[in-house]
Amino acid sequence: MPLALGKIERPSDSDDCEVGLSEGTTAMSPLARRQTNLTVPPMITIASIAPHVGEEVELKGWAYNFRSSGKIFFLQLRDGSGKVQVVYSKGEMDQVQWEALQSLRLESSVRVRGRVKQDDRSPTGFELEGMTFEMIQLAQEDYPIGKKDHGPDFLLDQRHLWLRAESQWAIQRVRNTIINATYAYFNENGFIKFDTPILTPTSCEGTTELFEMDYFGEGEDGGTKAYLAQSGQLYLEAGIMSFGRCFDFGPVFRAEKSKTRRHLTEFWMMDAEAAFVEHEGNMQIQEGLIVRIVKDVLEKNAYELKVLERDIEPLKKVQAPFVHLTHAQAVVALRALGSDIGERDDLGADDETLLTEQYDRPIFLEKYPAEVKAFYMKRDPREPDRVLNNDVLAPEGYGEIIGGSQREDDLSVIIERMREHHLPLEPFEWYLDLRRYGSVPHSGFGYGLERIVAWVCGLHHVRETIPFPRMMHRLNP
Amino acid sequence: MPLALGKIERPSDSDDCEVGLSEGTTAMSPLARRQTNLTVPPMITIASIAPHVGEEVELKGWAYNFRSSGKIFFLQLRDGSGKVQVVYSKGEMDQVQWEALQSLRLESSVRVRGRVKQDDRSPTGFELEGMTFEMIQLAQEDYPIGKKDHGPDFLLDQRHLWLRAESQWAIQRVRNTIINATYAYFNENGFIKFDTPILTPTSCEGTTELFEMDYFGEGEDGGTKAYLAQSGQLYLEAGIMSFGRCFDFGPVFRAEKSKTRRHLTEFWMMDAEAAFVEHEGNMQIQEGLIVRIVKDVLEKNAYELKVLERDIEPLKKVQAPFVHLTHAQAVVALRALGSDIGERDDLGADDETLLTEQYDRPIFLEKYPAEVKAFYMKRDPREPDRVLNNDVLAPEGYGEIIGGSQREDDLSVIIERMREHHLPLEPFEWYLDLRRYGSVPHSGFGYGLERIVAWVCGLHHVRETIPFPRMMHRLNP
Repeated sequence: MPLALGKIERPSDSDDCEVGLSEGTTAMSPLARRQTNLTVPPMITIASIAPHVGEEVELKGWAYNFRSSGKIFFLQLRDGSGKVQVVYSKGEMDQVQWEALQSLRLESSVRVRGRVKQDDRSPTGFELEGMTFEMIQLAQEDYPIGKKDHGPDFLLDQRHLWLRAESQWAIQRVRNTIINATYAYFNENGFIKFDTPILTPTSCEGTTELFEMDYFGEGEDGGTKAYLAQSGQLYLEAGIMSFGRCFDFGPVFRAEKSKTRRHLTEFWMMDAEAAFVEHEGNMQIQEGLIVRIVKDVLEKNAYELKVLERDIEPLKKVQAPFVHLTHAQAVVALRALGSDIGERDDLGADDETLLTEQYDRPIFLEKYPAEVKAFYMKRDPREPDRVLNNDVLAPEGYGEIIGGSQREDDLSVIIERMREHHLPLEPFEWYLDLRRYGSVPHSGFGYGLERIVAWVCGLHHVRETIPFPRMMHRLNP
Repeated sequence: MPLALGKIERPSDSDDCEVGLSEGTTAMSPLARRQTNLTVPPMITIASIAPHVGEEVELKGWAYNFRSSGKIFFLQLRDGSGKVQVVYSKGEMDQVQWEALQSLRLESSVRVRGRVKQDDRSPTGFELEGMTFEMIQLAQEDYPIGKKDHGPDFLLDQRHLWLRAESQWAIQRVRNTIINATYAYFNENGFIKFDTPILTPTSCEGTTELFEMDYFGEGEDGGTKAYLAQSGQLYLEAGIMSFGRCFDFGPVFRAEKSKTRRHLTEFWMMDAEAAFVEHEGNMQIQEGLIVRIVKDVLEKNAYELKVLERDIEPLKKVQAPFVHLTHAQAVVALRALGSDIGERDDLGADDETLLTEQYDRPIFLEKYPAEVKAFYMKRDPREPDRVLNNDVLAPEGYGEIIGGSQREDDLSVIIERMREHHLPLEPFEWYLDLRRYGSVPHSGFGYGLERIVAWVCGLHHVRETIPFPRMMHRLNP
């Protein structure tokens, strides 16, 4: 039987898509992230075998890889919680089971029993001395992934299977940690989750990039259109007048005909909003969130970051205080670095990259020219042609991960801004009511989850950061 | 000045919509749910004043209610975290500030300083001896809610303001606890969050109730349609083959021309799926989740449940083990109770209500006739014309809150089922791949968040359970 390992080496021409296990991976012992057994229903998983050293355990999972040396069979077993090598000796097991092992194919589902041994040479810290083997389902011979190098289109067509590759497993586990860190941070800081609507009657920023559909158009209402939300911010502003601090976290949609590595048509957005918080406090909240996210990932996903070959030194430097630059300071710095950015221009992606390379921490970029920003941003009283906004740029060239601002809270001023932006007032009367009845200083910000995941995991393209990416030419599977 | 309290009494003809504060509300001391001060940025909130008894504090919030007795002014202040009464004496404060108090209107935003006093007669356990008063923004005179009784359409038109009513505040706080209990439970039980797509190319259950839209239809792809997902289940089944256990939790959409009190066109659905879990284990996971949700709400939202006048005795009885009934047993019981349900019929809403009134715990209703259930449900090997599914019926007449089943994991059987359901195979080839490459026994279930919130809060209609409800005739605000 040929060695199977060669089959799932990392492809070289995959345009940054990753597949399978890179053999050189060494990782922290899972002891560091030891879990208790699953109890509902009771089940031992690979991530929870540490307390079972010396014991016999039963594990169920998939054959991620295997090789045979005639009398010894090495099975790489994964079960969702982690992976472990099971070593079988022909002379020490049932011969029918030994034959079943010889017929094994990649990604077959299997049940094994074995004795847990600590093994410091193993990338995962443990090994199983195999005792019994049972095939749950022998996979078809032609497992689509891993026999050769694959391009991104092929892998995305096989996304339902590609998710099993260790790199993809690692990315989604990091994503899960980032989601949970976000919830934990907001819970601890007085925010409640406030689910803003996806189906909306209009949009504050025009409809050119909105997905549109009939909303019971053939019914008695006749011809009503609904639009998929791009952000829940305006609704959150209503929420904080009741709850003080709110966040939402859900899918948003952008019908942008854009094919860059940073764009998806459906992505997850977190928006947070807080009453009685002004520009400086808004940045404190953002800084705390980013520090918390990176800290939790470093603590909980050391193994996953190793799998992804992520250099964790830059992540360790993500500590408060972040760098603060005004837009005006950034323009001066960028011109000195060779950029031709105009004095009142928004930063382009290249400018962001250039700037982040100057610092090893995230950058707060504050106080943009008012004309390049949205109507609801409050002007800086000291420089009324600029707004009290900020972006956060992630280091290592990743660029914008957060956008936020203090909001205009004066009724007459915000009406003036809406007129300047040629926005009709009528659909926003409810939003204006928030300035009529107990208006308060308030601020908020949002992050795109996929951009945070891409940065923390060190990925080039956001398409790997979400389970089933949707792009202009990709609605499948 | 007339007493303002009368203005926001609960309307009598509001068709179960609730507004404002019911005066008789008594509640547990907030000491029981004492929070620490907000630190990012530093701020004292009403929920965190317990440690400040005897001290002067500054609070910012909204005038929820007030009354004056000539020389004493009673201000009910809310700040999102809770509410507290501030008592001002004309003789002991700045006279300009006293005059400002006399001009106060409902829902104005204010800043107050006062000394914290414990007051066991107060529904919230504390009172402030008012020292200073500052108007942040004097509200317009005609605050839309509270001057008279309101019907549900009016209140839903004013949803952005109605959210400030204490009942609505309480409901969303309970919703927040339910969301967090769900995350905590799944985290502790080895599930990761797996965000399934909303934009999908097809649907497993036909397209009659799907919202449809052009997906870059005018571009080079020409005429592609996308549909808004009704459930992420099929995608979760791909997820568990990599991660073992997954859940999703996001908005789903149903273009149903239905106007019942249990239907929304956009609602939040939690779907969970687990590899190597069969029918019995699936029910164990569901039972643990429901018990955890109710326990957390009872612990964290005692005050909110009081506001909602929710009888908590039935909630305290939500303990394992739940009742188990097969569909066949339920039919016998229902007929004895007078129902005319057919032997192989699905239960109607009336049947569910009737059944839940017989027990004080939730009911697992198992093993429905195969012909009334979806193609992916695994047949019961002991009764092959029934499936290994279960619903969970909430007590007190609330009915179905969970639906789940073990999934068919055999390739040839599931293809046969799809043919029986007249489903095309081609769009589901990716789903069939999950049975080709390492198929495993697996199960899953889903809950509709709004139905859980309605039950736990004791509400008649789901429209109050989500911040901005979307119904057939309601897309605003």
